[in-house]
Amino acid sequence: MKFDMEKVKFDANGLMAAIAQDEKTGEILMLAWMNKEALEKTLATRKAHYYSRSRKKLWFKGEESGNVQEVKSIYIDCDMDAILMKVEQIGGAACHTGFKSCFFTEIETTGEMKTLGEKVFDPDKVYKKGK
Amino acid sequence: MKFDMEKVKFDANGLMAAIAQDEKTGEILMLAWMNKEALEKTLATRKAHYYSRSRKKLWFKGEESGNVQEVKSIYIDCDMDAILMKVEQIGGAACHTGFKSCFFTEIETTGEMKTLGEKVFDPDKVYKKGK
Repeated sequence: MKFDMEKVKFDANGLMAAIAQDEKTGEILMLAWMNKEALEKTLATRKAHYYSRSRKKLWFKGEESGNVQEVKSIYIDCDMDAILMKVEQIGGAACHTGFKSCFFTEIETTGEMKTLGEKVFDPDKVYKKGK
Repeated sequence: MKFDMEKVKFDANGLMAAIAQDEKTGEILMLAWMNKEALEKTLATRKAHYYSRSRKKLWFKGEESGNVQEVKSIYIDCDMDAILMKVEQIGGAACHTGFKSCFFTEIETTGEMKTLGEKVFDPDKVYKKGK
């Protein structure tokens, strides 16, 4: 059966959650949002596009930093309201802070927050100043 | 630093996205939603609790089916608005359809949808009729 964009269940804001997972290690890199245009562009180009809720516009991941996400495979869930992408993360890090994954903070059973891993890049060197 | 629930950024509906990942295989099992109560209960019990947007109430995953998710570790992302849990999925399947993962539908480059894997259980036998 052909994928039918009209059957995708975007929420009241026209968005759906999208997960990027490292296709080789299985590590979850980030969770972000797609509107219809972002999903269409991701499917057409096989490079991850999102919708930036803070900037209120289409966001081609890596457009500025060069750290694009090459989409190796893409999945939609049983409710047609969430996307999973297995990606190759160019540059090695998905998080704007420089960490490989945005989920670098573990909440331990004690309630302590523990930072995992190390920064892959220095955000000040990758992103332009004054943003 | 202690985890501070007051710093979590729930959305306008009081919700945040939560990913459940198989702690052994790295497979993404599902994406669902948590409100503050669901996150508190998940942290306190180390069993996944969500907020059901359709039923509009707290949802202890596996309460009916027995297929609870034992939370082995839990992470919050850089923006404090998404949760990742590495879980042991009791019963072997997270999806209410009987598939291990809710993301059992791949969207191929041709636009065809391809079903991956096989059902682990028969939903008619796990869930009560007449729901």
